[in-house]
Amino acid sequence: MTKVNVRLGENNYGKADVQLFKVYRDTPRHRVRDVRVRVAMTGNFEAAHADGDNTDLLATDTVRNTIYALAKEGFAGSVEDFGKELLAHFVQAGPRVTGGFAEFTEHLWERLPGEGEAGHDHGFARQLPKHTVRVETDDGQTFRVTSGIDELYVLKTTQSGWAGYLLDERFTTLPESFDRIMATVVTAKWEYAVDTCDYDAVWQRAMAQIQQTFTDHYSPSLQHTLYRLGEAVLGTCPELSRVWFHLPNKHHLRYNLERFGLDNDNEIFHVDPEPYGLMEAWIERAE
Amino acid sequence: MTKVNVRLGENNYGKADVQLFKVYRDTPRHRVRDVRVRVAMTGNFEAAHADGDNTDLLATDTVRNTIYALAKEGFAGSVEDFGKELLAHFVQAGPRVTGGFAEFTEHLWERLPGEGEAGHDHGFARQLPKHTVRVETDDGQTFRVTSGIDELYVLKTTQSGWAGYLLDERFTTLPESFDRIMATVVTAKWEYAVDTCDYDAVWQRAMAQIQQTFTDHYSPSLQHTLYRLGEAVLGTCPELSRVWFHLPNKHHLRYNLERFGLDNDNEIFHVDPEPYGLMEAWIERAE
Amino acid sequence: MTKVNVRLGENNYGKADVQLFKVYRDTPRHRVRDVRVRVAMTGNFEAAHADGDNTDLLATDTVRNTIYALAKEGFAGSVEDFGKELLAHFVQAGPRVTGGFAEFTEHLWERLPGEGEAGHDHGFARQLPKHTVRVETDDGQTFRVTSGIDELYVLKTTQSGWAGYLLDERFTTLPESFDRIMATVVTAKWEYAVDTCDYDAVWQRAMAQIQQTFTDHYSPSLQHTLYRLGEAVLGTCPELSRVWFHLPNKHHLRYNLERFGLDNDNEIFHVDPEPYGLMEAWIERAE
Amino acid sequence: MTKVNVRLGENNYGKADVQLFKVYRDTPRHRVRDVRVRVAMTGNFEAAHADGDNTDLLATDTVRNTIYALAKEGFAGSVEDFGKELLAHFVQAGPRVTGGFAEFTEHLWERLPGEGEAGHDHGFARQLPKHTVRVETDDGQTFRVTSGIDELYVLKTTQSGWAGYLLDERFTTLPESFDRIMATVVTAKWEYAVDTCDYDAVWQRAMAQIQQTFTDHYSPSLQHTLYRLGEAVLGTCPELSRVWFHLPNKHHLRYNLERFGLDNDNEIFHVDPEPYGLMEAWIERAE
Repeated sequence: MTKVNVRLGENNYGKADVQLFKVYRDTPRHRVRDVRVRVAMTGNFEAAHADGDNTDLLATDTVRNTIYALAKEGFAGSVEDFGKELLAHFVQAGPRVTGGFAEFTEHLWERLPGEGEAGHDHGFARQLPKHTVRVETDDGQTFRVTSGIDELYVLKTTQSGWAGYLLDERFTTLPESFDRIMATVVTAKWEYAVDTCDYDAVWQRAMAQIQQTFTDHYSPSLQHTLYRLGEAVLGTCPELSRVWFHLPNKHHLRYNLERFGLDNDNEIFHVDPEPYGLMEAWIERAE
Repeated sequence: MTKVNVRLGENNYGKADVQLFKVYRDTPRHRVRDVRVRVAMTGNFEAAHADGDNTDLLATDTVRNTIYALAKEGFAGSVEDFGKELLAHFVQAGPRVTGGFAEFTEHLWERLPGEGEAGHDHGFARQLPKHTVRVETDDGQTFRVTSGIDELYVLKTTQSGWAGYLLDERFTTLPESFDRIMATVVTAKWEYAVDTCDYDAVWQRAMAQIQQTFTDHYSPSLQHTLYRLGEAVLGTCPELSRVWFHLPNKHHLRYNLERFGLDNDNEIFHVDPEPYGLMEAWIERAE
Repeated sequence: MTKVNVRLGENNYGKADVQLFKVYRDTPRHRVRDVRVRVAMTGNFEAAHADGDNTDLLATDTVRNTIYALAKEGFAGSVEDFGKELLAHFVQAGPRVTGGFAEFTEHLWERLPGEGEAGHDHGFARQLPKHTVRVETDDGQTFRVTSGIDELYVLKTTQSGWAGYLLDERFTTLPESFDRIMATVVTAKWEYAVDTCDYDAVWQRAMAQIQQTFTDHYSPSLQHTLYRLGEAVLGTCPELSRVWFHLPNKHHLRYNLERFGLDNDNEIFHVDPEPYGLMEAWIERAE
Repeated sequence: MTKVNVRLGENNYGKADVQLFKVYRDTPRHRVRDVRVRVAMTGNFEAAHADGDNTDLLATDTVRNTIYALAKEGFAGSVEDFGKELLAHFVQAGPRVTGGFAEFTEHLWERLPGEGEAGHDHGFARQLPKHTVRVETDDGQTFRVTSGIDELYVLKTTQSGWAGYLLDERFTTLPESFDRIMATVVTAKWEYAVDTCDYDAVWQRAMAQIQQTFTDHYSPSLQHTLYRLGEAVLGTCPELSRVWFHLPNKHHLRYNLERFGLDNDNEIFHVDPEPYGLMEAWIERAE
């Protein structure tokens, strides 16, 4: 091994997969927040890396303690706002910390059935999809927020096709289709055009819009549906500047039953786990 | 390696993880079934094992084709009934097959929002929990059916404790608790006292009962809640002879914030992924 | 809900997914054991279930503490022997405990490169497959032991086929094959004909035998290879009474390249994740 | 929903999780390549997204066919070179494609025991870690290559500590340690200073170096070990410009046995699955 001159490039450290659960008990009708948290700090960490000098370094165990303590002192509103509280703290508390990011996966809980329509006061069932958040800062005072959706598995049994694509290619064997199942597991994230807002309300509005737009048109491709989802979310959420989707095409393949003397009028499908078409795009506001 | 005399013991073979999706398109209001299937056959398979003689053996690829074809020809009702149809077929079709079992994991889909209250005609979102089924036969004519629930994650934020247990043991360090979070991921299965019934209706009734009973009492232990769940399901479902639960205690540990000068009146918890207490029991009808 | 008479059926409780790591530091050449443990106790637990009476019940937290403490006091030899130590303890320590079982998944570690051939004294890399163990008792004094292998993924690129099976069936479409890839992820477990033995040595011998036998013959079916694996393990391990295999057929499907004017002489394959053929059997000693 | 003006931002589409297995059968001593492939194309896809116009679009099914066909015609050398072949093809074949990326996860197979030292001719067992590759292009002619390692789980039982960090913080409770277990699952990736090279040889050299450097020093922090790993890889691999590590601190927590009257001289540990410290950094050549 030759001795070489090296230096520390872009880097961060912190605590990941902290599982925080908060119960709001101010009234007998409890509320809960259930988040998986990663906090990563950036700053002047050359001495630790190059020389093994840990002076003024926040231990990741301290980071964990702090997350739970600040969840008690703060975390009164959205996960997004809690992310800002955490990062502001670490930039102030860590002599070597200048910025960082916090990432959250929030598990949502719906109330179990109770006596009235409103559901149970302290009983809950976990549901899908998940709410995701990422907050970033360079100075502990101004923040870039991204929110999103994870694991929303939607499907429509008709009103979807795939045709008109490049056919003269040597390797094209797929026939055109004008009626197929379209299924996808939606991962979405969005950036904000405003410094702050009612993040939970935006999430609910975006989520409802995605569920509605998914079925409101004949889909000539997953790309086009992606575009319409983005257009609709931006239309219904003026707080947002752009929205991104990651849409795997969960192929439901019509099983060939004609071999056995049976019709298959889009009734019997094999769900192919892989491979799958995968579409990713940002949809942005145009001037 | 010494030459030894051996023989084939208990055995089965078949196809696993067949992903079958069926759309019922008889009206514009589509319905769907989404099941992961395993079919395992038992019978006279000594020649194949000992001598490599495949005569009269059903290929597992044939098993797969058959599952899709019979889903088209039959599968008009419940997954449980489809299991009977499949096993009856394989006992008849396979010269060496005398019995076997079929296992299903059904993914449930709820309708996306539509124009009225009833939801969308052909748009769906996948939901939890899952419906499980196992059907067994020794002759292809009579069947033992087990149905159940998988991945029902429920939690209550109060009305649960753990006290009065063995304290004088050298290794006991846990303090008693009279107010804690109780959380578990319910796996349940039940056997039937009747030869056939409306399996889907029973599942819905059992599921609703579990959701209700989970919160209707102060829980002195997960064991006691398990027992009450079983008692309630048998009470509401006369079709059943016994019911089994597998209940991991998803520990939500009160985080020690007193170290930091903060109260923690059951507000801030660490969700410990492992280890976990695990309770399993059958609850049966008594004479 | 009708009031019904119920009773507690077969049941157990304990602690699962306890991750225990032991370092043997008696010499500078450290050794390690890395096991995931489940302990389940059986006994007289009616009062806890039916009445919520926890008197004389071992807390699962106590079970966890005990596993770590006994790992310090004992666990000098094999995982199998440690399972016996644990169960003997719990039957003695729990006034209501009469028996139970302990299950282990052992992760194996190989030494990192060191100065000599023998590898590093205290540096290790985790490897596959895993070693599994289950010990059961009804009295805390006599034990049934099962050991096994998990996640051994083996493959051969030739010397395997599938032919001579039932062809006149309506649903058979698969052509015969005389040269294919055979791939499987071996799960094996075995029972002992002796009360005790050098469990680690038997495991190493069985493992080596499986690796050797997998390639020593033309395989007309996964069933036949299963049988030969069982016969070989029983031949090389007189300590065993019978051995069980669970062999998924990890289908490597020859990709149809002839459509594109290309030969495919068993060179290019699609690895199909599911469905898969699945074979399970016990191979036993014959008189 | 307000009508808004939107446009397509950064985007790509293609096929993911294609499982390709190639057998090199030119001699009786077969060799194998087992890769999971994602190909994503970038280009002029506005019409498809905004208007549902699929003209001149490569179907993702065509992408899949092409991957298998080109694996037959090419893929004579490294995975990295195959990535270049694939991207060059798609830029040429797709009228709307201008660039893209290909990502690979390669599963490595070692030969099963054979007659000599060299291992079996056509029998293999799958092993860890995995080899990862990403190739990117903007023009189909010049490429940026990144290679790496995934799932290398290493551990040392001594010669590691954590001390000298910030102690006066309100939330610091962790005591200093001068002898602990250090364990991590290495994810690494590196960029090249050269246009092409023997990618497999570099991977083997980097891998061996990481295994050696991990144990060759007392580690005052995972950050410092990360830095030394990077320095060593750059020292032994002049082909590389920089290297990145993602190192979770797999905490092995000394179990408190003093409560039970037992010593625990770093012998008995609980392996805590989460949360975990997480370190990420690029180590780069300095002038």
